[in-house]
Parts: sequence; structure tokens; C-alpha cells
Amino acid sequence: MVPHLTTALTGPLLELEKTFLDKATEIEQWMRVQWQDHLPPFYGSTDLRNSGFKLAPVDLNLFPGGFNNLNDAFLPLCVQAAQSAIERLCPDASRLLLIPENHTRNQFYLQNVAKLVSILRLTGLKVRIGSLLPDIVEPTTLELANGSTLTLEPLVREGGRLGVAGFDPCAVLLNNDLSGGVPAVLQGLEDQWVIPPVHAGWHSRRKSKHAECYDRVAREFAAAIGIDPWRINPEFGVCGQINFQERTGEECLAAQVDALLGRIREKYREYEVTDEPFVVVKADAGTYGMGVMTVKDASEVVGLNRRQRNKMAVVKEGLEVHEVIIQEGVHTFETVDGAVAEPVVYMMDHYVVGGFYRVHTERGRDENLNAPGMHFKPLAFETCCTLPDVAQGPDAPPNRFYAYGVVARLALLAASVEIEETEPAADVAELAALG
Amino acid sequence: MVPHLTTALTGPLLELEKTFLDKATEIEQWMRVQWQDHLPPFYGSTDLRNSGFKLAPVDLNLFPGGFNNLNDAFLPLCVQAAQSAIERLCPDASRLLLIPENHTRNQFYLQNVAKLVSILRLTGLKVRIGSLLPDIVEPTTLELANGSTLTLEPLVREGGRLGVAGFDPCAVLLNNDLSGGVPAVLQGLEDQWVIPPVHAGWHSRRKSKHAECYDRVAREFAAAIGIDPWRINPEFGVCGQINFQERTGEECLAAQVDALLGRIREKYREYEVTDEPFVVVKADAGTYGMGVMTVKDASEVVGLNRRQRNKMAVVKEGLEVHEVIIQEGVHTFETVDGAVAEPVVYMMDHYVVGGFYRVHTERGRDENLNAPGMHFKPLAFETCCTLPDVAQGPDAPPNRFYAYGVVARLALLAASVEIEETEPAADVAELAALG
Repeated sequence: MVPHLTTALTGPLLELEKTFLDKATEIEQWMRVQWQDHLPPFYGSTDLRNSGFKLAPVDLNLFPGGFNNLNDAFLPLCVQAAQSAIERLCPDASRLLLIPENHTRNQFYLQNVAKLVSILRLTGLKVRIGSLLPDIVEPTTLELANGSTLTLEPLVREGGRLGVAGFDPCAVLLNNDLSGGVPAVLQGLEDQWVIPPVHAGWHSRRKSKHAECYDRVAREFAAAIGIDPWRINPEFGVCGQINFQERTGEECLAAQVDALLGRIREKYREYEVTDEPFVVVKADAGTYGMGVMTVKDASEVVGLNRRQRNKMAVVKEGLEVHEVIIQEGVHTFETVDGAVAEPVVYMMDHYVVGGFYRVHTERGRDENLNAPGMHFKPLAFETCCTLPDVAQGPDAPPNRFYAYGVVARLALLAASVEIEETEPAADVAELAALG
Repeated sequence: MVPHLTTALTGPLLELEKTFLDKATEIEQWMRVQWQDHLPPFYGSTDLRNSGFKLAPVDLNLFPGGFNNLNDAFLPLCVQAAQSAIERLCPDASRLLLIPENHTRNQFYLQNVAKLVSILRLTGLKVRIGSLLPDIVEPTTLELANGSTLTLEPLVREGGRLGVAGFDPCAVLLNNDLSGGVPAVLQGLEDQWVIPPVHAGWHSRRKSKHAECYDRVAREFAAAIGIDPWRINPEFGVCGQINFQERTGEECLAAQVDALLGRIREKYREYEVTDEPFVVVKADAGTYGMGVMTVKDASEVVGLNRRQRNKMAVVKEGLEVHEVIIQEGVHTFETVDGAVAEPVVYMMDHYVVGGFYRVHTERGRDENLNAPGMHFKPLAFETCCTLPDVAQGPDAPPNRFYAYGVVARLALLAASVEIEETEPAADVAELAALG
């Protein structure tokens, strides 16, 4: 399980990673101060792209799957970080209800849930799994391909509290991104923490809001350590009124794509990058890699054919897409054994607890590696992200992973700011009443 | 590095460890609540003794050496825990001064310091080492047997602040137990955290105060999980006016030994233990295993010969012993490859970060395994102490290590209470002024 990383570039890549190493003290101090002011999400994962001249997050998942892909050697780190999160959120809690996605046939996802449950149990919590699936009407034990088992139970709502039969939890942990909205059973809970808060679900979350928060975080961070924020920050634009089926809003999209490509071209000239710029058009509320399109010229988004329109028009849970984010594409220069690789970094509380590479042999370095039906090969990081080694080169795995951990934490911090700023007023009042 | 643990007992041992496993949820919840009320020491290590019917700490070190004996696989755990401690103590700190013991010839100790420095640096702190040795008048680099190096620098006191040349730290971390008193350079520091606080040094610390705090912690914990506190708590007595050289106070000592042996015998009858009870007489302010005596009958402490008197009369830094603690002896039933083994558990902040066995082939199971000149073989724990596995037996290493971790954390909590209760009034005022 040792990734053989190679990279096409050496110069600017090493320079960026070297800056992170040299400035580790300033970076860690800056991070400590930030986490005094912001409550870290319970957990999160982020997809990074490393083009050498640029190392940036392209997605931040607040309901991470894939814990089963992490290196088991770092399980103690997960447990310790989860302990820290639980102390922070609910020190006197002992019972936690986990609500997963409804994918009962996805072995990979179920193994993720099983791993998550085992991490939580190792912190000393009693954990039960409540399913939103209507056909789970009694405790149902699933046997997983890796030998573990998972018992899904029907949710029981009693007054203002949610649980499963005979189990009244102090906190509800969501591993379900609420793309379809907040189910009635999750509404109006009293005195029970819901983590992450329901407003962080994809029914209301917007990639563009996250990008805006990340933009601010990245600028402040870049100023603190003295780098050009563009080196860690993908530029973006937004189109708010689009209807792919009715072909309205294409002009807005084309104009935004053109403007963004122009800005990227300018930066490429500044950094003497000879690659062809591209942008990625994504449904602003989409997830699971659905509703994503790679574009190299504005003309490509005008007059889409039926297949393309269908692909972009509807995302998970059948939601129609009317808002899109146009995000600067970042080429992946990392390869593992000749295949394109995208690092995914996992965090619990504000700690990096591991990560893995999405390795795909059939995709190009400017393509989305998290697409429906895409069977990537997960490759667990061989070291954790907290042990940089100054005696080695900046591209040695412990050092590259340190750089990944830094950028991943910036994305997590942006998510923290995003959750604060999008909190509905009612929740604030409720929290204040809870004291 | 896999310890082959064997144990002579099965019944009561498994029952005690099984209770810890069964009650893990209650235990972790209880711990979380405790750490809301008490500030964890920055670090600590504790020597445990496991007799099967009893699993108890016999010593808690607030200035731990031996970080070099831990399993390197758990280094990330140390880093994460140290990060947590630093956030708690001095979030905006970036420079830390470490003050080690003056043992410049002890390779094992120096390797401990080097490991500690590397852990602290990995949290992103700038770390320098200030020496209290008068002959360190310029930066002095020591080459260690394991290939690492260590640079000791002379301390520089400027007004109310302590540092080394060109380095003004936010915090001073002591790895020097201050047996000889608080050096002038460490007195009256302004706006600099000293960790642990100087009053936790052995010039003022008393084993009996720690034992008294542990007694309370153990009782509360035992009540919370429903066990007899004696199962985790060594009984103790104190003699406050003894002079081994002048042979005064022997009667007090003999009476205490007799009373304690009587209480132990009673408990042994209750638990049907057939071992011979013993007590350990220790200098109340002693450390490094100096000034320690194993006693099975009160008559042994009356009329000590010259050699025995000399051994007990003076401890580290030439301090005379006038106060002793008489502690219930706990037999070690653990052996590694036929040799007697004593677990030592390491903690940073309130997290268990690893441990090792002191393995000694020439000592009995009722003897002190940390004695001057004693070359124990350290054997790093093969798993960390946070991953109990209910699918395995209570004596499987992950489960036994969990039990160790629980008892070790109780000792750390007692140290935390001890530090609070022994804080001089002036310090309290100073802290309040610092806000």
C-alpha cells in the first residue's frame, strides 16, 4: 500500500510545497488562532488537485463516505480526534444516533458506515444506526462483504426527540447529506444536537457559498504566510438562473466561462504555465459527482445536445439544477503507477486523520475523478499528514502529505465559516435558549 | 516488538479487565465530564502494577523521560495530543523553550529529550533547549548514539522573561523535575507559561498528596462504574517526622507499616488471595526510584543497618528524607518471556499516547523495577491504549492496554487535582492578573 508518486513538474511544485514546510510554524500558529474563533465541523473530507504550480481543494464534503478507504494504521488518530470532537460538542453525551444515506446496496458505502461506527464506539459512545428508509420497519442486520455487519433500525420520533427503539440519544450524527430536504423526523428536535446542523445539508448548501468562504480563508492565509492566494485558490463564478432543459441562461453561463478562462489565462502567463486552461461547471447544490462538465471554451456550453442537457439538468434525488458554479479547473499532475491520482483528505474535528488517492486509469488529468459509475481504486496514504520531515525533499510523501493536510484544513475552516454564516436565525435563537 | 504477555492468574484479573471493557461507555463519559472541570497536565507517565485482582498506578511522573521508548507507530498520536495541549494552554504561542534535566551523559535520557523535541516541532512550534547546567556557556551540540543530535543553549534571563539567545519563548516546558528547588532564573517569570507549574516540581511535590488525590479520584470512579475502589487503589500511610541517620521516627514507621499490612491482609482474605502482603516505603519527595524499600513485616524497618539507612536517608540532588509514604505493594503478575514486566503508560494532554514495559529478568514480582543502576529492557506496547476489541478476550493486548489506559488516566486526573490544590496563592493571583 505504498503509493509510488511521480509528478510531471518539479520546479514550482517543489517551491509551493517547500514554502509550506518552511512556514510550518507560522501555519500551525495561524491555524490554532483560527480554531479559537470557529467551531470545527464534526468531520469532513476534501478532494484536492495538485498541478504543481497550484494545490487546491475542489470539493469539501461535510458528510464524508470513504472512511473504509483510510489506512487502518491511523485508526487511533481517528479515535482521538473523534474524542476531541465529542468533548467539544457534547461532553456529557454517551448515546449517539447515526443516520446514514439510504444506499443499502452499496457495499463500499456500507463499509464506510461500519468503519465510522467502530471509530465512534471506540471513543466510548453507544452508537445505533437509524435509517430513513421507509422499508426498514424492524432492526435489519446487513452482512458486509468484508465480514463486518451493520444493523439498521427504524427511527422512532417521540415528541421533540429522535431515536430508535429503547435508545434516546444525546446527539444525532448525520452521514446523510439531505439532498432531498430535511425529513420531517429531523425537524424541530429539542435538546438533541444534530451534527452537522441540518442547514449544512445539500438541500440548502451551495458550492458557491463555500467557494466564497474559501476565497476569504485562502486570502487571509496567503497573506499570513506570504504567498499568492491563487496558488491555493481555484477562481470561480456563479450563474443563478439557468434551465438546461428549457435552454435559458446559456448566455450567462457562456459569459462567465469566458471571463473565468480569461482570468486563468492571465495567471498562466504570469506563472509561465503552458497547459490549456479549463473550467468545471457544476450544479451549485450537486453532489456525488453528478451534474459536472469540463469546459475549455465558452462555445461548449451553448447549444448543448440532449444527452449533455440531461446530464446537467438533474442531480441526486432528482433535484433540478438552476444554479451552477463555474470553477477553475486544476490539472492533476500526480500519478500513481501511471494512472491519474487525486488525493482525498479526511478530517475529524480540526485534525487531519488520513486520506487516500482516487486512482483512475481511464481518465485524463483535467477530468473529474469522482463521477457516477466511476470505479476508482482507493490507495490509502502511507503516512499521516502531520509528520513533515525536513531532512527529506519537499516532495517526499511525508512532506507532500503535510502540504495536503494544510490545504485540506483551509477547506475545512472555510466550511466552518460557511456553516456559521448560513445558520438560520431560528437555529441561533434555539441554541441560545439551550444555553 | 510484540510483547508475549503471560499471566499467572486468570480469574479475578479477567473479571476486572472485563468490567472495564463492559463499562467503556460509562468510563469514557465519566472521563469527559472530569476533564471539563480539570486542566490536564501537559504530559505525564505512570507506572502501573497488575496483580490480576488489582490494577493500580504506583507512581505518576509529571516530567516524563522515556518518550524514546514508545512505539514510533504512535508518533502521530503524540503530535495530535500535543497540539491539543498547546491549543489549550497557549493558542497563540509559536516558540517554546524546553528545559531538560542536567544528565548530559545519559544517552537514554538525551534520546528522550530529542524525541520530545521532535514531537513538539511536529506540532509546528519552534523549539529550543535551554540548559540549567552552568558549564553550558554557548550552544553545545550533542551527537546521540541513535544518530540524532541535540543542541543545548545557555539560558538568558532578561527582566521577567526567560529564553536563549535571540529566542523569546511564549512558554517554558519543564522536563526537569526541580528536585533541587526552583532555580533563580525560573522565579518570577512574567507573562510566560511555565508547564508544568514550578510548584509541581519535586522540591515541593509530595507522593502522599498525590496518593490522597488519587484516593478520591479512584473512589469516585469506582462508585461510578460499580467496583470496589481497592481494586485500583493502593492503600497508603504517611510518616512525617523521620530521620534515618539519627534513627528517630522508626516507631511511627513501624506502626504505619503494621497497620497497613493488617488492612491488606484483610482485603486479601476478602478476595481469597494467598500471596504474602508487602508494603513499599518511599521518600515522600523522592524520585528516580531512590529511597525505596520493600517491607513484609514491621520489624524490618526497626534497627536498619548502616547500608539500609544510607539508602533511605538521601535521594536525588542530595535531599535528606524526613517524610516517607508507606504504600501498599502490588505484585506484578505480568511477565514477558519469563521476566517480570511493569507497564509504563504515557499521556499528553488527557490522551494516552503509548507505553512500554519495563522488563527485568533479575527482579521479583514484589520488587521495585525502577531502581538506580537497574537496566530494564523497554518493550514498546504493540497497540495503543484506545482500541479495545470486544470480539477478543479481556486479556488480549488491545483490551489489556485499554484497562491500562483507563487506570493511567485516573492517575493523571489525580495529578491534575493535586496541581490545583497545591497551587500557591500568589500564583493564583498572578494567573488572575494575566486574565
